[in-house]
Amino acid sequence: METKNILIKNSIILNPNENTVESFKGDLLIENDKIIEIAKTNQSSISTKGIEKVIDGENKILMPGLINTHTHISMNLFRGLADDLALDEWLNNHIWPTEAGLNGEYCYTGALSALVEMIKSGTTTFNDMYFFMEDVAKAVDESGIRGCLSHGMIDFGDQEKRENEFKENINLIKNCNGMGEGRIKTFFGPHATSTASKDLLERVRHEADKYKVGIHIHMSETKNEVNTIMEQAKKRPFEYLEDLGFLKDDVIAAHGVWVSKEEMDIIKKRDVKISHNPCSNMKLSSGIAPIQEMISKSICVGIGTDGAASNNNLDMFEEMKFASLLQKVSTLNPQALNSNQTIQMATINGAKALNLNKEIGSIEENKKADIILIDANSINLTPISDLISSNLVYAANGSNVNTTICNGKILMENRKLSILDENKIIKKANIAIKELKQL
Amino acid sequence: METKNILIKNSIILNPNENTVESFKGDLLIENDKIIEIAKTNQSSISTKGIEKVIDGENKILMPGLINTHTHISMNLFRGLADDLALDEWLNNHIWPTEAGLNGEYCYTGALSALVEMIKSGTTTFNDMYFFMEDVAKAVDESGIRGCLSHGMIDFGDQEKRENEFKENINLIKNCNGMGEGRIKTFFGPHATSTASKDLLERVRHEADKYKVGIHIHMSETKNEVNTIMEQAKKRPFEYLEDLGFLKDDVIAAHGVWVSKEEMDIIKKRDVKISHNPCSNMKLSSGIAPIQEMISKSICVGIGTDGAASNNNLDMFEEMKFASLLQKVSTLNPQALNSNQTIQMATINGAKALNLNKEIGSIEENKKADIILIDANSINLTPISDLISSNLVYAANGSNVNTTICNGKILMENRKLSILDENKIIKKANIAIKELKQL
Repeated sequence: METKNILIKNSIILNPNENTVESFKGDLLIENDKIIEIAKTNQSSISTKGIEKVIDGENKILMPGLINTHTHISMNLFRGLADDLALDEWLNNHIWPTEAGLNGEYCYTGALSALVEMIKSGTTTFNDMYFFMEDVAKAVDESGIRGCLSHGMIDFGDQEKRENEFKENINLIKNCNGMGEGRIKTFFGPHATSTASKDLLERVRHEADKYKVGIHIHMSETKNEVNTIMEQAKKRPFEYLEDLGFLKDDVIAAHGVWVSKEEMDIIKKRDVKISHNPCSNMKLSSGIAPIQEMISKSICVGIGTDGAASNNNLDMFEEMKFASLLQKVSTLNPQALNSNQTIQMATINGAKALNLNKEIGSIEENKKADIILIDANSINLTPISDLISSNLVYAANGSNVNTTICNGKILMENRKLSILDENKIIKKANIAIKELKQL
Repeated sequence: METKNILIKNSIILNPNENTVESFKGDLLIENDKIIEIAKTNQSSISTKGIEKVIDGENKILMPGLINTHTHISMNLFRGLADDLALDEWLNNHIWPTEAGLNGEYCYTGALSALVEMIKSGTTTFNDMYFFMEDVAKAVDESGIRGCLSHGMIDFGDQEKRENEFKENINLIKNCNGMGEGRIKTFFGPHATSTASKDLLERVRHEADKYKVGIHIHMSETKNEVNTIMEQAKKRPFEYLEDLGFLKDDVIAAHGVWVSKEEMDIIKKRDVKISHNPCSNMKLSSGIAPIQEMISKSICVGIGTDGAASNNNLDMFEEMKFASLLQKVSTLNPQALNSNQTIQMATINGAKALNLNKEIGSIEENKKADIILIDANSINLTPISDLISSNLVYAANGSNVNTTICNGKILMENRKLSILDENKIIKKANIAIKELKQL
């Protein structure tokens, strides 16, 4: 399966950068883990000589692999476990009791199932927070995709719990940072301001600086959560963290639904990154995040699917459509979050949000070869629009992805996986949830 | 391709009725155009003897073909033509100038492209309003699916235009009602209260009674439209139509975004049907229809995708997810529009909305065999949830449909079309829009 170099010929190359999304017809050469040459078709002098693998890119859109900036991949086991419930009932009677039976093996299986789903729908990088993360790292290592992993740290003010959480997250950092030829990065994962104490949050800041890793946290997802912090700290959540000295440019905050204008100023000032999760926010009735306003203030916003239990899939194409359409209807402005901006969120801005934008998020020479090919000759993408982003955001879904390449390795070609065994993983996942429900 | 009888064995049968959605494992026998026998697997005595075609339904969900209650299928040519624009600019500078070049041949091509898309994403019945509808009827006849067709009647008060519109729509009724072994039904299609005069609307009511066909109209899609009627008639749109004697149980009103409580009472009293189009309403920033409230008043609501120019696809699975999630977030109630209710909207309620519920919309003996099979062994539907509707509404997309049967004929099996030529139609559609743009 090891291919040293890959040439993709004659595809429509879609390249998002921080200012715009450009597109042109061209050839792209991969060597080892990197893009080493890009040329417009008419000007291309890339030779097929000595190339081990040539992919015909005709009628295919070549773009950066999508970046899912907030999820809990092992929760793929909990897809459809319970829906249409108030948050309390959902958590207390369904999610938490089932989570109590989790172990490393189950989390590994859930992770594999999510990794197959992501590869098949064009995601090549994801940002995860959950439990048994060393088992998740093992799955990510095997899968070939890129993951940022953090342990979900919850202490509710209990010192023993807190110590244990730090042990877990620090072990993850020590054992897994840089695994999988550098595809795995580790973060600290303080769960939220309402579940992690002030002591935990302050120490996370200290340890993150020490270990030089980022911080992944849930922020202001529900109104209740904000009210809880306001009662406890007499401040809004981002103000509270600002006063703790917690906020820096290495923090990625998931959700950010209930955020005041003053908090947006703090977010901008500290260059905190936001992961927007529209499906989850809609399905759990959390609310509508003011993304258009954040973007107008030049806050860096990526897109996340959240876990499969609250979405209920990991399809970043679908998530892009939800993101754009939700901003349009909530602002009553059809120009809000246009298709190019949405593509930027799911690629280059997602990369920036994870401090990976020097490596991934766009189609540039010397960047990692994290690339997907979309079959433009699909009926739901017909006719081919002049503005490539339009069909991708408004008409496509993950099944339009034909080929997924990460770190220079082909993980799927013509919709067939090359590393993971899809059927075996589907069977394992179905057995795992049956066992978990019987515990 | 003519198969007299088809046996589908061992599938998970999902059967929506007006009260609930039931599911059980069973066998289903089709003869000619009808379902003639349904049996639970353990009690099944359906023999394979004399059966021409046996389909293995193991690990497949069998459900009614989806019913798209509002669309403009020839507009598939305009997918991605222009997006992210204010409604006026979109219509005046892009849609209308391109529509001006339309002819029967282009509308036929656009329709074929949409028919392929619908068959591939599990829709077996749609409700259409547009131009050159006899050409659309020809495409529907060839395709094998079921369509309700109306001519979009616009007079802006001009008598000559009005006469012409009646001629067009009445010709459609005379020439096409009952075509395609009864798969084609015709409706009157007065465009909207803001584009069709009082004279036109009154005569439509009269002619619809005379020809015994239904009426398909856009209603209260935007706030502007409601304001226009209120200025002209000093009444809200549904009150205006009520006073004209226009509203009966044969009227299907698309959108219904800006509807007052008093109007809902009228809708209920006259048993007017609503087609909810969440993607279009969100993408064009029209607003959020109060669907949860309508349903609580027992108003019959179906789901529609609207045309591909304002969605931009015809995937009813995606539309179901948008419908449910939009109600949840707009009411801040996670219990709003649960997955069973959403499935009902897209099947049995859609059938009722088109006055076809005696023939289609559920899995019952003696109903037409309009059936789709969904591959439950897909990674995005893993694990298989106890509540079948959950995975279908929240996790699936159209690509999970494996087999589409309409009127007892297999139109797609294992994702391969049996009647329409997908590649040829894709090529034709790409050429058609290129030509139209150059006119």
